[in-house]
Amino acid sequence: MTNYENRIGVKSLLDKVVSAQEAAALIQDGSVVGMSGFTRAGDAKVVPMALVERAQNEKFQIDVYTGASLGPEVDKHLAEAGVIRKRGPFQADSGIRNMINSGSVTYVDAHLSHNAELVRQGIIGPIKHAIIEATAITEDGMIIPTTSVGNSNIFVEYAENVIIELNVSHPESLIGLHDIYTPAEQGKREAIPMTNPEQRIGTIGIPVDPAKIAAIVISEEPDAPSMIVPPDEETQTMANLLLDFFRDEIKAGRLTNELMPLQSGVGSVANAVLDGFADSEFENLVVASEVLQDAVFNLIDAGKVRFAAGASITLTAELQEKVYGNLENYADKICLRPQEISNHPELIRRLGLISINTALELDIYGNVNSTHVSGTKMMNGIGGSGDFARNARLGIFVTKSYAKGGAISSIVPMVSHVDHTEHDVDVIVTEQGIADLRGLAPKERAALIIEKCAHPEYKEQLRDYYNRAVEATGDAHTPHILAEALSWHVSLAENKTMKKELVK
Amino acid sequence: MTNYENRIGVKSLLDKVVSAQEAAALIQDGSVVGMSGFTRAGDAKVVPMALVERAQNEKFQIDVYTGASLGPEVDKHLAEAGVIRKRGPFQADSGIRNMINSGSVTYVDAHLSHNAELVRQGIIGPIKHAIIEATAITEDGMIIPTTSVGNSNIFVEYAENVIIELNVSHPESLIGLHDIYTPAEQGKREAIPMTNPEQRIGTIGIPVDPAKIAAIVISEEPDAPSMIVPPDEETQTMANLLLDFFRDEIKAGRLTNELMPLQSGVGSVANAVLDGFADSEFENLVVASEVLQDAVFNLIDAGKVRFAAGASITLTAELQEKVYGNLENYADKICLRPQEISNHPELIRRLGLISINTALELDIYGNVNSTHVSGTKMMNGIGGSGDFARNARLGIFVTKSYAKGGAISSIVPMVSHVDHTEHDVDVIVTEQGIADLRGLAPKERAALIIEKCAHPEYKEQLRDYYNRAVEATGDAHTPHILAEALSWHVSLAENKTMKKELVK
Repeated sequence: MTNYENRIGVKSLLDKVVSAQEAAALIQDGSVVGMSGFTRAGDAKVVPMALVERAQNEKFQIDVYTGASLGPEVDKHLAEAGVIRKRGPFQADSGIRNMINSGSVTYVDAHLSHNAELVRQGIIGPIKHAIIEATAITEDGMIIPTTSVGNSNIFVEYAENVIIELNVSHPESLIGLHDIYTPAEQGKREAIPMTNPEQRIGTIGIPVDPAKIAAIVISEEPDAPSMIVPPDEETQTMANLLLDFFRDEIKAGRLTNELMPLQSGVGSVANAVLDGFADSEFENLVVASEVLQDAVFNLIDAGKVRFAAGASITLTAELQEKVYGNLENYADKICLRPQEISNHPELIRRLGLISINTALELDIYGNVNSTHVSGTKMMNGIGGSGDFARNARLGIFVTKSYAKGGAISSIVPMVSHVDHTEHDVDVIVTEQGIADLRGLAPKERAALIIEKCAHPEYKEQLRDYYNRAVEATGDAHTPHILAEALSWHVSLAENKTMKKELVK
Repeated sequence: MTNYENRIGVKSLLDKVVSAQEAAALIQDGSVVGMSGFTRAGDAKVVPMALVERAQNEKFQIDVYTGASLGPEVDKHLAEAGVIRKRGPFQADSGIRNMINSGSVTYVDAHLSHNAELVRQGIIGPIKHAIIEATAITEDGMIIPTTSVGNSNIFVEYAENVIIELNVSHPESLIGLHDIYTPAEQGKREAIPMTNPEQRIGTIGIPVDPAKIAAIVISEEPDAPSMIVPPDEETQTMANLLLDFFRDEIKAGRLTNELMPLQSGVGSVANAVLDGFADSEFENLVVASEVLQDAVFNLIDAGKVRFAAGASITLTAELQEKVYGNLENYADKICLRPQEISNHPELIRRLGLISINTALELDIYGNVNSTHVSGTKMMNGIGGSGDFARNARLGIFVTKSYAKGGAISSIVPMVSHVDHTEHDVDVIVTEQGIADLRGLAPKERAALIIEKCAHPEYKEQLRDYYNRAVEATGDAHTPHILAEALSWHVSLAENKTMKKELVK
């Protein structure tokens, strides 16, 4: 075991070091547990797996709340072991996803910024245990998180006791990178004192009463690398469309060359779009996001991004090696915050963020589905997309215009599930084109979305639906033929394609 | 004409007094016009009607943006005269509604808190003219609004010129009632310095460069009274259910007897529900809403409400007489703010509002339609309901469980249009019961909504759909049968009822 004693500043806590199995044995059946972890970063690793082991001999269940998604298969193993009674607010694991969609796991998909308020009110909770991955515990009793903050601060504050996974594989140079600020209760709360994403407003760690720390488990498990795929020709096209849009905004006097703080959603497409800035003339950019993916560090290295704040750092194996080996070089350029702060409506609106998130499908009026495949099966969750899209200065959604080799049009007459309404979607980008929907009425939006963003193989079919809907409703505010609005999804289920023979 | 000179503090402006016709002649064809007015209160009255007159002899069109709805038939007359090219962000007039739903008026329905940002960015605008109803113009060049503030401050700030409707029918005791605060541009903006709805953070009027005032029209037209209907047995039941819910929240330690600042949507049902507090034990309440309706003043008179802030005062004829004749008595108890402030996500979240809004229909998973009749025809608009529901501490929606004598169930398998997603709806109240959806997964919500809130005549039909959807999807996260999800609306259109024969 690597030397860990120097990472425990409160020396009385050295007695609390136990095995993962001993720590897992402390978790009470029926309790609510808050775990660190946000998009595979800084997640509790060894204690959850020890819980899976414990479940082989003992039946028990807990509610598991995290920041966002855990490392690969942790959720799957916990779920398959029957340990999870309820799970929230986000997951991205195919194993637990199957169980969520077959009735064996109850999953509460929620805005990531809302969790802390629900904990304060006791809607989530009372929290019995917090399991938090840490880089160190300082002499003055602060838990230094690792590569994410997520909900860890609120879990530690409200949990009856805290189990620390002291992960010595994380460099000590993480210390000083975090900025922990927790609002007081509603009604007794001050304004969040931030007017610029580069400001530090909190402490470098999560304050904790050492008496609340029930166990410390030493871990050496690294974060699982991100699995995003590299940019391709279509994502490059989308990036170029967006850069041209920003250039037009600058010409119109609505943006400067530094743009506004950028938020980019998790996943390959949003990452690829952000990567597109590398060869652009834009510079001195600031990122104020939830997940700092590869593109952010590439842009810092390229001198394009001067500062980046988020709730987690999630990197591919290649970038992990590069970044974690040289974290000192990024110390004054990055900052990790609680998700309540990174995603807070107060700050998103005040700072005027440009928000770029991925749509699963969208409809001709600009409503976006981010979560449900064909309206019924949960993919991952809404995450922070709603926090950002609603309050951003510019709420941008990106998606390829088709999927499954053309069997699916990402643009449909009516989305099968709504996560972001027409009121919250400003700009849509596909590899076909860009639609600026700001200030437009539904029928104006439909014309733009169909003509600019839809795949050529689906344009005529969309026009046909739209024109008949206008006719059928007497040109109503939002024309729809309700008997047919979801028929593309029905057709996909029955015929494996959304393509229809058009009656001429 | 009543004496008006003493209401114009900047004496050089006395030369600007003209007739409504002369003022209307200043409005340029093709221009964007911002008008005062919020739920019939403080709306521009005589100049818009002079525009209608002008349109009899001249073809011209303008974009009309307001705070919210104008007085009765102003929108109708403007629209029927062909004057309106585009209208936003809210209306509640049957005349213009018919034209919106037959393709002759383009209407942009938007979150009420978002308009000011759109004006700043030039998405709405450039604004050529602002037409603002005023109580007075002070010596130091401030426009004192009348019974609403709405978007008037942002319109005055950005308009090329301003036309004042100096309405001498409004009492001068309105002076001092307003609290005008306008955030700076995004990126250069401070936190909004309010931690309690009772604080005054701005000026008593809208600062204006007198040189921008192009005309002053003297008006004596009173605000049109509100047409809300009195509470009935069912709204009383809903109010009682909600009061009991609050009592339970107090027992659970989540609220105190003063509750949290209350927001109540416009309309009869929300007003009636608020009225229910009159005979309750709750006291020392604070209202932080957008429209202050009759119930608020009744509760002030009853000693239940100690302070009420909003963006407008909209009263029935009876209450108008009572309140406007004794405004001095309310001077330290009420305050009118810009809608950007009354509806600001920063403040709604910080202050922890309890928000009560009316649903048009909702579905078994808790999605709410506030705007579109059968998914296609616009009723009024989303107004501020989204501003509040998303960011409130408690987002409550109220509706009777049925309409049209039972032909319509307000609770359907899938709403035909989504304004508020499952993520933003905390509690649902009908005359049948109350469903507390906080922290629940979709299937848990469905069980509660069907059993607690649906009308008995539709319960079996809802259970039947839900059970078959669970079966058809293999118990997916959000069970739906897409081919049937909107069939209740189709049935209503074809058979005049949502009632179906159930196959047993």
